[in-house]
Amino acid sequence: MNLPAVASDSPRVYLAGPEVFLPDAEAVLARKKAICARLGLVAVVPLIDAPAPAAEDPMKRAFAISAGNEALIRSCIALIANLTPFRGASADAGTVYELGFARGLGLGLYAYTNDPRDYAARALERPDGLDIEDFGLADNLMLEGGIAAAGGVFVRASAAAEDPWRDPGVFETCARAVSRRLAQAITAAR
Amino acid sequence: MNLPAVASDSPRVYLAGPEVFLPDAEAVLARKKAICARLGLVAVVPLIDAPAPAAEDPMKRAFAISAGNEALIRSCIALIANLTPFRGASADAGTVYELGFARGLGLGLYAYTNDPRDYAARALERPDGLDIEDFGLADNLMLEGGIAAAGGVFVRASAAAEDPWRDPGVFETCARAVSRRLAQAITAAR
Repeated sequence: MNLPAVASDSPRVYLAGPEVFLPDAEAVLARKKAICARLGLVAVVPLIDAPAPAAEDPMKRAFAISAGNEALIRSCIALIANLTPFRGASADAGTVYELGFARGLGLGLYAYTNDPRDYAARALERPDGLDIEDFGLADNLMLEGGIAAAGGVFVRASAAAEDPWRDPGVFETCARAVSRRLAQAITAAR
Repeated sequence: MNLPAVASDSPRVYLAGPEVFLPDAEAVLARKKAICARLGLVAVVPLIDAPAPAAEDPMKRAFAISAGNEALIRSCIALIANLTPFRGASADAGTVYELGFARGLGLGLYAYTNDPRDYAARALERPDGLDIEDFGLADNLMLEGGIAAAGGVFVRASAAAEDPWRDPGVFETCARAVSRRLAQAITAAR
């Protein structure tokens, strides 16, 4: 894979998202890495940047992937999460775990969703008798609350309808915000 | 609410779970606190132990709840997560965020689910053309991977079918494991 060169002192950011489940996940992730590189960010991602675990046993392999991703996140100063709803009313569980993990570590948190609707609008589609939180947020309040507490940015916008999982438009808007923020922070620290 | 007295030096554990969305959430959470108290654990929970935010603006209120829950988790040495699937193939997003957050902070992680099926079995019910991870785990590998890396315990079992959200059986099995583990750890540290 040919990726643009990035200065080795560029900020490392982890890209969390359910695009790892696309049949062409590596190509989609490589395009996102290239977008970040043009913005002066070193994006690291599962599958490409975490070493492939050799374990044959499925559970050992799963835990090795988890450990690899946790180590990658620990190596970064910020995380960009794709919080587009996935297999239910909320974002992908792995992505949400990684967002919380990054918050616990004190990383910068940035996120986007390709579905700008409120959480309540989606949850109401399948009533279950339990309360539906309705604060005008895109998902459970812990997610956007954590992003806000970390001083981050959350972009809610529609992706191109014909292929929302592969349209990089909303991601790029978010990555530009990350680039601007981190450049300001680095300038301020000098 | 009358709760059993617990020694003030008992370990504090945070109970994360979607039972906060039950119409009788406070009563369900109080029962779980009582179970923990009998096991020598001080369980802290949203709604009861986080101060009620006064903000009128919905988003400010949401962020105040989030900040209160994050502060509660920071005050604990372990977290018990209810990872029963909620409004989709995976666990509740708020609970998953809190699990990741606790992992980032280095807390002990314990979890249970009232649905012992594999994640793949649930995800296959609504095929979407994306890969379905199939490692024999109950949910996304980051969740159980994090619990395992933290040396924790994950209980997969069925709750009473007539009212799984209120049957405390699987929770109690998990809380007993937490109590044993923490007692061992405290003895070992003496």
